[in-house]
Amino acid sequence: MPLSLNHWGLYTDFYELTMAQGYFYCEKKEDTTTFNYFFRTNPFKGGFTVFAGLQDFLEILSEYTFSESDIQFLKSQGFRKEFLKYLSEFRFSGNVLSAREGEIMFPNEPVLQVEGNVIECQLIESFLLNILNFESLIATKAYRVKMVAENKPFTDFGLRRAQGLGALHASRAAVIGGASSTSNVLAGKLFNIPVSGTQAHSWIQSFEGEIEAFRAFAKIHPENTVLLVDTFDTIHSGIPNAILVAKEMEKRGLRLKAVRLDSGDLAYFSKKARKMLDEAGLEYVKIIASNQLNEHVIRSLLKDQNAPIDAFGIGTEMITGKNDAALDGVYKMTEINGKPKMKLSENIEKVTLPGKKQVYRCLDSSGMFYRDAILLTDEKPEEVKTICHPIYPERRTSINHLQMEPLLFTVVKKGQVVVEQKSPDKIHDYLQERAALLPDEHKRFISPHIYKVGISEKLMEVRQALTQSIKEANQAR
Amino acid sequence: MPLSLNHWGLYTDFYELTMAQGYFYCEKKEDTTTFNYFFRTNPFKGGFTVFAGLQDFLEILSEYTFSESDIQFLKSQGFRKEFLKYLSEFRFSGNVLSAREGEIMFPNEPVLQVEGNVIECQLIESFLLNILNFESLIATKAYRVKMVAENKPFTDFGLRRAQGLGALHASRAAVIGGASSTSNVLAGKLFNIPVSGTQAHSWIQSFEGEIEAFRAFAKIHPENTVLLVDTFDTIHSGIPNAILVAKEMEKRGLRLKAVRLDSGDLAYFSKKARKMLDEAGLEYVKIIASNQLNEHVIRSLLKDQNAPIDAFGIGTEMITGKNDAALDGVYKMTEINGKPKMKLSENIEKVTLPGKKQVYRCLDSSGMFYRDAILLTDEKPEEVKTICHPIYPERRTSINHLQMEPLLFTVVKKGQVVVEQKSPDKIHDYLQERAALLPDEHKRFISPHIYKVGISEKLMEVRQALTQSIKEANQAR
Repeated sequence: MPLSLNHWGLYTDFYELTMAQGYFYCEKKEDTTTFNYFFRTNPFKGGFTVFAGLQDFLEILSEYTFSESDIQFLKSQGFRKEFLKYLSEFRFSGNVLSAREGEIMFPNEPVLQVEGNVIECQLIESFLLNILNFESLIATKAYRVKMVAENKPFTDFGLRRAQGLGALHASRAAVIGGASSTSNVLAGKLFNIPVSGTQAHSWIQSFEGEIEAFRAFAKIHPENTVLLVDTFDTIHSGIPNAILVAKEMEKRGLRLKAVRLDSGDLAYFSKKARKMLDEAGLEYVKIIASNQLNEHVIRSLLKDQNAPIDAFGIGTEMITGKNDAALDGVYKMTEINGKPKMKLSENIEKVTLPGKKQVYRCLDSSGMFYRDAILLTDEKPEEVKTICHPIYPERRTSINHLQMEPLLFTVVKKGQVVVEQKSPDKIHDYLQERAALLPDEHKRFISPHIYKVGISEKLMEVRQALTQSIKEANQAR
Repeated sequence: MPLSLNHWGLYTDFYELTMAQGYFYCEKKEDTTTFNYFFRTNPFKGGFTVFAGLQDFLEILSEYTFSESDIQFLKSQGFRKEFLKYLSEFRFSGNVLSAREGEIMFPNEPVLQVEGNVIECQLIESFLLNILNFESLIATKAYRVKMVAENKPFTDFGLRRAQGLGALHASRAAVIGGASSTSNVLAGKLFNIPVSGTQAHSWIQSFEGEIEAFRAFAKIHPENTVLLVDTFDTIHSGIPNAILVAKEMEKRGLRLKAVRLDSGDLAYFSKKARKMLDEAGLEYVKIIASNQLNEHVIRSLLKDQNAPIDAFGIGTEMITGKNDAALDGVYKMTEINGKPKMKLSENIEKVTLPGKKQVYRCLDSSGMFYRDAILLTDEKPEEVKTICHPIYPERRTSINHLQMEPLLFTVVKKGQVVVEQKSPDKIHDYLQERAALLPDEHKRFISPHIYKVGISEKLMEVRQALTQSIKEANQAR
């Protein structure tokens, strides 16, 4: 993990440790088990989710150990000697199958499958959820922005409104989703992503007047001069001063790169500013906009109002994944010692899918995403003709003769990470490639068409039999 | 800072560094300046904000230096040699005045005032905002829960839905706001806050049946047995099995501590469960509830439905500060080299207050919070008879003869932290003390009464004169 916090053992919920101690003393520590990570709802009332965070998860998994001071802390919390000795030597030694980072995923299908002994599978739950839920949320948000911004670049400006150190993972996920750069310098260094930024109102205020502030900035940063024009009065001061400085720069063979609008009606001001710049012969000077932006505002600006904005800086809403603020991903036991396991629930949508599984993406004849099918690992996809709705088994759909791609790949084998690291922009390229195959009706913001995810008849049978036996056991009590 | 990330120099926005380099080469690096941190809106449509994060901010400030590898990174970004040398020796050497952590604060009043040279004041902006905005958001959220939960304890269960490492600061802030403990073990260790937790559905699933799982847990953790009763069927399986185990524990001289409900209608199930437990003579077994809780749901459960719930576990909504996800705090230059500075804006509510200031809390005759008054530092509070509305100067209110308490205290002097560390629960005690003085009409959730914050006539005059001179300068152009 990039942070120098290099023992991650305590980055977990207390109950993972109480359960682990329980498994230890119940002689269950060699029990082999399978857990699935999945989410139940696409964020932002959208039609898909961008899976992100895998690489950060794998880094923490590799460093998921307990330092001497961690052990001392747990001792002070009443954990017992033999168990603490076990923890002091702990390393994850299981297998992880995962969707590729940047993959388009849908509710209720396994995104990640963890196999190992029950203690190791249990202990990693909290940080797995913490990282994958959050990065997937932000990558999805950023990709929604990307869909409306299209070829206009946008930058993550969110550090100041981010949820503390969550800023780090968020800036990475924003680039996976499509941001071209971040203002967060530490994230830039840690994750090798481009950083950018120019000046704040305080720069302007620190000079006698706005024109002096603009001149000084252009002198110090001649190759990358972006002028913030709204400190006093955008139309009567900011833009005229920027034009003056641009003309002075031209005399020195330089070019003003852009002006930035950070308040007021961005459609109105961008049109005014564009006109003034063009009339001064400064067609090449770009207009950057910031201030409370999100995918809906940007769509309105670009599509409904034809605002001549060339680039965006996006803060609060992208870095915090507003309005959702969290993806509802969960991590559930699906098998122990070869026996399928599931959770019933008072809430029908919280019932889980038992067994070891693989997810297949079924493509239509033009190669577009058509259905996802969840099969038991030992099923042969070419033999599965029909899939069922996971809640209403009578609703079935044929997947006969469709091309099927497995989505889960081994990323950790016996505790060793077996996939190469990819930079966030490369992961974004993969996302772009995949998103191009997702039909538009799943991408729209309002009432997106629900992408169908079904389960094999065999999986349905396993679930029904298990449900029946749990119910009988309860009645027999 | 508790994380071993011990050079925090890059935890900033890129533009702070481009501006700092600009100040450096414009010969402004000795300019003295004052910045104010304030927010513009109370979160959650509420009537107040709990200020939190000061201690974490001060720790990062103390470690705000650049490592050799940070300097190398900045070199790769094009920063220049002399400036990088300056950064490599950088340490904050200014003063910070701040409200006490746990103080009740209101929009537009300075919460923190930073004084120093323009470079140091600028560089710290981003992480100051990052930490203070987020911890204040979460402490406020948690205190809203506390107001409805009253003497019933609630625990932070949010790690799995938190925004990455933001979980750490959030768990601390939740305890400041009133959470009795956290599930986040690392936060427990770092911030010395109580940790708690019991078992998940996976524990239940890992056994042959629910009763075996309950028995095993009670055996391993006899002093702290809380049983999760909704894995299969709360009423027909979970509660009856918990009663059975409680009775078995009684025979061994032990007591089942509680059952936990985690799905379904919590009002309905808690009443059913209470009745079943009581009928079995288990009046002492408590009921803990979790699942999508927030202050509104808890109020409905306790006040409207008399649900017999004794404690709560709160996840997503508290740890992410839903629905706001961010506090809109900003950090603005108010003075440079003794001259007051301000920002006009296209948005009237974004206009700032110039000068060095102090905030006074005016108490009514019964000692309750009545008004806050923002004065220039050199004003004597006893000589200020009237304060004005900051936007509508014709709206005035008398503060004559009121008792006035200053809210901002020196916490950093010439770069040295001069306040002692306090544990989060002690900060909560202070919050409780202060919140008791805030009239109820500011505490209600729906349309809370707006607490009045005014500015002195002298501050109003400074602002008006400055606005005038900026406008004249623009017209003269």
